[in-house]
Amino acid sequence: MIVEMKKGAAKGDVQRVVERARDMGLGTQLNYGTEKIVIAILGSNTGQLSTDIFAVLPGVESVVRVMKPYKLASRGFKSQDTLVTIDGVEVGGQRVVVMAGPCAVEHRNQLMETARGVKKAGASIVRGGAFKPRTSPFSFQGLRKAGLELLAEMRQEVGLPVITEVVDPSQVNMISKYADILQVGARNMQNFPLLTKLGKSKRPVVLKRGLSATVAEWLTAADYLLAEGNEQVILCERGIRSFEDSVRFSLDISSIAVVKKFSHLPVIVDPSHAAGHHDLVGPLAKAAVAAGADGLLIEVHVNPQEALVDGLQSLSIPKFEKLMNELRQIAKSVGKSI
Amino acid sequence: MIVEMKKGAAKGDVQRVVERARDMGLGTQLNYGTEKIVIAILGSNTGQLSTDIFAVLPGVESVVRVMKPYKLASRGFKSQDTLVTIDGVEVGGQRVVVMAGPCAVEHRNQLMETARGVKKAGASIVRGGAFKPRTSPFSFQGLRKAGLELLAEMRQEVGLPVITEVVDPSQVNMISKYADILQVGARNMQNFPLLTKLGKSKRPVVLKRGLSATVAEWLTAADYLLAEGNEQVILCERGIRSFEDSVRFSLDISSIAVVKKFSHLPVIVDPSHAAGHHDLVGPLAKAAVAAGADGLLIEVHVNPQEALVDGLQSLSIPKFEKLMNELRQIAKSVGKSI
Amino acid sequence: MIVEMKKGAAKGDVQRVVERARDMGLGTQLNYGTEKIVIAILGSNTGQLSTDIFAVLPGVESVVRVMKPYKLASRGFKSQDTLVTIDGVEVGGQRVVVMAGPCAVEHRNQLMETARGVKKAGASIVRGGAFKPRTSPFSFQGLRKAGLELLAEMRQEVGLPVITEVVDPSQVNMISKYADILQVGARNMQNFPLLTKLGKSKRPVVLKRGLSATVAEWLTAADYLLAEGNEQVILCERGIRSFEDSVRFSLDISSIAVVKKFSHLPVIVDPSHAAGHHDLVGPLAKAAVAAGADGLLIEVHVNPQEALVDGLQSLSIPKFEKLMNELRQIAKSVGKSI
Amino acid sequence: MIVEMKKGAAKGDVQRVVERARDMGLGTQLNYGTEKIVIAILGSNTGQLSTDIFAVLPGVESVVRVMKPYKLASRGFKSQDTLVTIDGVEVGGQRVVVMAGPCAVEHRNQLMETARGVKKAGASIVRGGAFKPRTSPFSFQGLRKAGLELLAEMRQEVGLPVITEVVDPSQVNMISKYADILQVGARNMQNFPLLTKLGKSKRPVVLKRGLSATVAEWLTAADYLLAEGNEQVILCERGIRSFEDSVRFSLDISSIAVVKKFSHLPVIVDPSHAAGHHDLVGPLAKAAVAAGADGLLIEVHVNPQEALVDGLQSLSIPKFEKLMNELRQIAKSVGKSI
Repeated sequence: MIVEMKKGAAKGDVQRVVERARDMGLGTQLNYGTEKIVIAILGSNTGQLSTDIFAVLPGVESVVRVMKPYKLASRGFKSQDTLVTIDGVEVGGQRVVVMAGPCAVEHRNQLMETARGVKKAGASIVRGGAFKPRTSPFSFQGLRKAGLELLAEMRQEVGLPVITEVVDPSQVNMISKYADILQVGARNMQNFPLLTKLGKSKRPVVLKRGLSATVAEWLTAADYLLAEGNEQVILCERGIRSFEDSVRFSLDISSIAVVKKFSHLPVIVDPSHAAGHHDLVGPLAKAAVAAGADGLLIEVHVNPQEALVDGLQSLSIPKFEKLMNELRQIAKSVGKSI
Repeated sequence: MIVEMKKGAAKGDVQRVVERARDMGLGTQLNYGTEKIVIAILGSNTGQLSTDIFAVLPGVESVVRVMKPYKLASRGFKSQDTLVTIDGVEVGGQRVVVMAGPCAVEHRNQLMETARGVKKAGASIVRGGAFKPRTSPFSFQGLRKAGLELLAEMRQEVGLPVITEVVDPSQVNMISKYADILQVGARNMQNFPLLTKLGKSKRPVVLKRGLSATVAEWLTAADYLLAEGNEQVILCERGIRSFEDSVRFSLDISSIAVVKKFSHLPVIVDPSHAAGHHDLVGPLAKAAVAAGADGLLIEVHVNPQEALVDGLQSLSIPKFEKLMNELRQIAKSVGKSI
Repeated sequence: MIVEMKKGAAKGDVQRVVERARDMGLGTQLNYGTEKIVIAILGSNTGQLSTDIFAVLPGVESVVRVMKPYKLASRGFKSQDTLVTIDGVEVGGQRVVVMAGPCAVEHRNQLMETARGVKKAGASIVRGGAFKPRTSPFSFQGLRKAGLELLAEMRQEVGLPVITEVVDPSQVNMISKYADILQVGARNMQNFPLLTKLGKSKRPVVLKRGLSATVAEWLTAADYLLAEGNEQVILCERGIRSFEDSVRFSLDISSIAVVKKFSHLPVIVDPSHAAGHHDLVGPLAKAAVAAGADGLLIEVHVNPQEALVDGLQSLSIPKFEKLMNELRQIAKSVGKSI
Repeated sequence: MIVEMKKGAAKGDVQRVVERARDMGLGTQLNYGTEKIVIAILGSNTGQLSTDIFAVLPGVESVVRVMKPYKLASRGFKSQDTLVTIDGVEVGGQRVVVMAGPCAVEHRNQLMETARGVKKAGASIVRGGAFKPRTSPFSFQGLRKAGLELLAEMRQEVGLPVITEVVDPSQVNMISKYADILQVGARNMQNFPLLTKLGKSKRPVVLKRGLSATVAEWLTAADYLLAEGNEQVILCERGIRSFEDSVRFSLDISSIAVVKKFSHLPVIVDPSHAAGHHDLVGPLAKAAVAAGADGLLIEVHVNPQEALVDGLQSLSIPKFEKLMNELRQIAKSVGKSI
């Protein structure tokens, strides 16, 4: 941490910064510039300290953090790539893992036909929402318990693992009985009671990035899961909020390389929520694989025109099959497979 | 809702849109433009429908919602201003209500001295966090239960009502025993299980705007509280995420007038979290009152240099007293009082 | 400038950073942390250097600038407030200066009647666009030369100084003959040939903030004017681009206090372009004065319903008169006058 | 254009909207909803009209544009893909065109060696800045005229066409003598006098997207070039401003597919300015090709450690060669070549 003193700050002010550091078990080194004194705060955990601790002292102009705020999710903490294994499917390795299925479970046929369709096209995991967080209370909120039961039935019949969203800490244990991967939605990325509960559950978690979360905040949120001893963490980029209105969210394609550089966790991409329109899902999915994503989370519906939620961004099964064929080429071109 | 057909869309495509509308009990009217057909979808609840329902149909170019997505929070639903009364303090009326206190309850003395200080300076409600949602799991998480007990003691001794944050639906009932107003933090604005629980509790709620929530999404989140029959809802603007990095968050000053125009709910402003620095709190607080805010939520600490959380943005008691005097002048200049 | 070396960086890498600094006439001081070495680069102009100079060297993890990138516009360079005087009207002092008039000069009557109206209501300067930068080439582009002539006539008849926009460096001298203040529009904030030409002209300049410019970039753009010896620089906040769509631009109300803290230049606010709707202009104008703005730039039209440009955000003369009366109260409440 | 009237708007208000439309040669159709009247404004050029024309009328609640604001750049205007040919190099076709070279021309050797290096690696066009728009007036501003002469020499010796930036309308003709493609930088995307001059020049233009320009505004800026009869227009996505600070700009990868959907113009991507760091250039370049970009604009420097501008984001020649080999695979996987 770097503390910049104000021009002409009093000796006593400098002294106070040094003492506060010492009181916290931290070292300091003073740099006498031509115009101002700059104090380096030295220690192994300065990334987790608030800059306010020093910024609030008299004579301080600004405080800059040099170390990252996240710890357990960082490459510095663990240099080797983390692999998350779900029922034999490995996320974070040589294979690009595709999770696909409807936004919401609507009824038995819809789920079964979609699941069979995506399996045939090459998906390894089936997605399907039972508890749907909706912007308006007057929108369809999901089949809830009945949806979970259909998902479990599907796993039995179709033979693919299931990912579904959990929105309430009190439901973590219950949903764990039905699903293989628990998904934290973008709006819950900083729902800390939920993260703590999921950390304790030790179940594989997909942690979606918040709509306006920086990559650093996203990795710090992952620390909540890791701090409870759950290392089965998969990050998921799904678009961030920007001023651009031709898409639903702006897919932050650079976040994939940034995550790979600074973290050991696998990262997948949800092109459907970013695109908001089935026409745009393909290009975004291809870009994600080319940029190094470990997997994809794609909305597919046996009949998008009748979908209760997100029909416009859902691919039909034939369109998904076509996309999978294209993605296989891209994966190959970056030395991976699907 | 306005459905724009593609140039040269087939008759059957137009027909399908009309039929889907009819199936949902909605009327339609066709507009034959020079280049394309535009279909108006008519009905009283089109604001709550997803545009996807029509956008997904063949031949449709785009769908635009004319009605707002929120309903119960809108002026159209209730034209008269809502007043929320807490222990005799009325929010939404002629008086600008100031809620002040420390970010986090740290210990007995800190809370009592701060509470007495802000009361003397003219604050009507004391704020204080017991359960703190923190970006990193390694930061101070609040005194929790012990913090609530100190808040209850403070109310007894100092005689001001209490606002505190709730982060977990399962704690709503428990925290209701200690606090007069329950606060939903920015990161929980779309935590729907929490909102539903708070709606059922019928307790006064301060609903902070999400970091990247539009005003429309914020009001739609308020619909979750109102839909459960809780009309004691106060909105709180606290800055939005933008590219600007000289402040912690960009206070969206226009949101006050926008909320007043489209909603009947009272709206207050938290200048502390937006500013991120005590130097900037004053100008933002004054701007908020001049723009028509119904109240303020300000972080004050008896000794900001020793604060465990958010010290840099906390006002000392003398600084808060000085600000209150300035705010009284501004309030008067817009025909209000403090 | 603070250079953070990678964990385990080689001695030679550290040496190279030190040497590059020395070659540039800069000092260095090494801080040996527990995990990494941090090098402070010391010198008086490090704010104007690119961080790339060091970031590109082997073994460097990151480089953080401690000093601000702007120089001449900073309080460090000149601590006293700059006053800009136009024809006896002082901007930056005790009086809140109101500049008002139509977005575009349309015809003689429109300009004269509007100018007389705003003068009577208390405006000190008349605004009016002759060369209009429009998003589409098919929109009205202004009366151009004929518009300037009408502005000069107006100044003669009505007796108020004129502010108008300049969009092309080759027109600076010509427009200077007609106008008292030259305005740089938001889209031209980083049009450096234009800024340089205006700097040389020594004419008072209003420099609008770019749609997505940080305050630091805005002040660095002002350096272009100041570097040519033109100290007649007034900054103008007019709203930034954010995700919020209920207004045209999000007025960054905190920028006023931030500018006041870090710069000596006066800052005014254009509430009209931010609001995008006449209903919202009043609250934003009041907030700006309460937050400490030195002036306002407001769009007024004798007949907004017939305006060729920006009619929706223009105030009619009666509405402007009413607002001026309200603003006088606000100005008084912060110890100023209008 | 869709005009939504206020609930209970007077008959006269509705009448006025209809009359204003008629006066402008537009048709109308009235839709009587259950709560409000909605008026469709019909005509072929409603995309180019300001919504204010109707929004300002009494009784109007809101106005929504259905047609796009751009015209000549739209697929509706011209359905077939535009190909831009520079010295035999075709942009917009089956081949991904790579333009590469230093950010700024610094001296003869630097330019020649870099040009030879990128040519050998497979680049088709050399980039190099002579007039550099820099944030601060105290930064290196380019070699100017001398830089152009070096570029012309390079073309002669190395045999590749040249792209360079133009920042001042008065220099368009002069720079046209030295360069094959004229580049409009992001900060000048809405410098309309510059666009008009470039339109008249009929020279191939690369139009970079503004830092905070929507795709619709970008295409509308292209209309300025097309309206002057210049059809040699290539769009260039280079990252937009967002809250994320781990990269210099957020590459808007979806813009490629959006442009392809709504416009006939070719679109290339500059991964260097978006990334801000050479480590991230590769993943972004690969993503761009996978998403369908027609070309790339990449910063390469013979010795990035000595670069005067943007060294950190420049690739060395060996790194560029390696990237080109990877890009060839990606291009092949999407049915293209490099």
